[in-house]
Amino acid sequence: MPAVLNLDQIKEALKQIDPVEVIIKSIEEGFVAYSQGKVVVPPIGELVFEEPRGDTHIKYGYIRHDDYYVIKIASGFYDNPKLGLPTSSGLMLLFSQKTGELVAVLIDDGYLTQVRTAAAGAVVGKYFAPQKIRRVGVFGAGVQGRMQVEYLRYVRDFKDVIVWGVNQGELDRYKADMTPKGFLIQTTFDPEEIASTCNVIITATPSYTPLLKAAQVRKGTHITAMGSDTAEKHELDPAILKKADKLAVDSIPQSLLRGEVFKALEAGTIKKADLVELGTAISDRKFQRQSDDEITVVDLTGVAVQDIQISKAVWRVVAGRK
Amino acid sequence: MPAVLNLDQIKEALKQIDPVEVIIKSIEEGFVAYSQGKVVVPPIGELVFEEPRGDTHIKYGYIRHDDYYVIKIASGFYDNPKLGLPTSSGLMLLFSQKTGELVAVLIDDGYLTQVRTAAAGAVVGKYFAPQKIRRVGVFGAGVQGRMQVEYLRYVRDFKDVIVWGVNQGELDRYKADMTPKGFLIQTTFDPEEIASTCNVIITATPSYTPLLKAAQVRKGTHITAMGSDTAEKHELDPAILKKADKLAVDSIPQSLLRGEVFKALEAGTIKKADLVELGTAISDRKFQRQSDDEITVVDLTGVAVQDIQISKAVWRVVAGRK
Repeated sequence: MPAVLNLDQIKEALKQIDPVEVIIKSIEEGFVAYSQGKVVVPPIGELVFEEPRGDTHIKYGYIRHDDYYVIKIASGFYDNPKLGLPTSSGLMLLFSQKTGELVAVLIDDGYLTQVRTAAAGAVVGKYFAPQKIRRVGVFGAGVQGRMQVEYLRYVRDFKDVIVWGVNQGELDRYKADMTPKGFLIQTTFDPEEIASTCNVIITATPSYTPLLKAAQVRKGTHITAMGSDTAEKHELDPAILKKADKLAVDSIPQSLLRGEVFKALEAGTIKKADLVELGTAISDRKFQRQSDDEITVVDLTGVAVQDIQISKAVWRVVAGRK
Repeated sequence: MPAVLNLDQIKEALKQIDPVEVIIKSIEEGFVAYSQGKVVVPPIGELVFEEPRGDTHIKYGYIRHDDYYVIKIASGFYDNPKLGLPTSSGLMLLFSQKTGELVAVLIDDGYLTQVRTAAAGAVVGKYFAPQKIRRVGVFGAGVQGRMQVEYLRYVRDFKDVIVWGVNQGELDRYKADMTPKGFLIQTTFDPEEIASTCNVIITATPSYTPLLKAAQVRKGTHITAMGSDTAEKHELDPAILKKADKLAVDSIPQSLLRGEVFKALEAGTIKKADLVELGTAISDRKFQRQSDDEITVVDLTGVAVQDIQISKAVWRVVAGRK
């Protein structure tokens, strides 16, 4: 029988990964393998439901010659809150690449996706954020607005954070949650306050209209754009991508179809040839930030190799305990 | 937490479905819903591995306005026998169509696929086999060669069975296994012995060349062809499909791409317009066997709605016990 882990057991396993840099490193290695063409990722499977409204996505793949392959199933059922249930649920299945056997069922309800996404932000920070962070500005006071900041601290030293949100309640909760973790939190409704005081900006909203304009982005700013993951959403003025000295994406094929890059290509501010993959940038210093004056933008849409890597990281802990 | 059932628990649950006709009925209802266009079945997901050789298929779908949706993951790793492991493994995941939540993980190692395939054979028998079976002829002494016969007995009264195989050892094992179940088993290496003495024939082999020729098929014969499920495999001379008075398939879209019908279309012995779906035939008597003299052929390639129905049938037992 395969191991079956619930969310508490998965969180417990993650806590035992010490230091947390091990998780970040494994996601980093995943991006490198992906950009080297070593990862097999077939098209995403999809089921759409109308009554009640919902959708389920099946993402799956493997790194060639690795020990495992992973199938992730994630769903969003948008009327669930009326029933007192969370909108999202999901799981990751880890199989042996040697025998096909099911090794582990990780019923994480989407939590591992949050972790691997935050860890990707840390990988981006490691190669693109200025060495000395003045203040981190965050658009979006949700889960990723918190976790991106927490994970970034594993690769850069900083304390000052300013968060932008849509209502004071969510900003107050953000401050209440993050202050005990050692951050000095300011809140704002004014994007300019973020643009003018932060040299690292994280966008983590489901926005359909740009939050920042190109004229607001100062020399020396790094932006991690991780909120937009569809053809409709975007958080940055397409002119910002043109203004960037360095522009990277987690996956070129995906960014041609969704996120900030898709919008900028559509607007004609950038060309496909301007794109470099994160995994390529990790392996080649010339694609990384070169000085404290450069503007860098990295657009993340989420890649199945992150799911593969985080599942394996959890499983290594559990298997080691056996 | 969802329920997680292993193979023993799944077999135990199946035993509690009393009478077995309930399973056959649920598969029958699945075919009807499918042919009425009520079933959503997206394209199959696939992962192919080279070292060691293996493949994994993800089949999924749902009946509109039903309570559940199902994702089936099935793999074949062809070097497993060298490790003393079975080639196939797999599981079915049952999710709520109301909330997206994972309800049950059925780690059946492919067994439920065997059951739903045998039950489909019984549905075919119910509407196409002559009322009075003289003898059942089976090509293939494997799992389906056994289970098709066992399930057929739920819809027709018979005892005499003759089985064709490729070596005496497998035929002897077949006889040893099936005799205690109340069947009178003969064995043969000669297809003509089957064609000349049986009015129900089941083909359950992975053959790439026809086992039966058109001239051998007598008036009044019913053939259930369930072995071929790819574009390469077939078990029947394409002229047999032309000779048939009634010809049905489980899924028209699938049969255009694989199995006996694909080969016969390719050979030009039949046209797409000759095809009727099993679900349509169940609902409309004129597509079923009309007399003891007719030749009928039904080609099964396997449809995801069968997986949906069998998972639900198992889950109803388990949920009822809770």
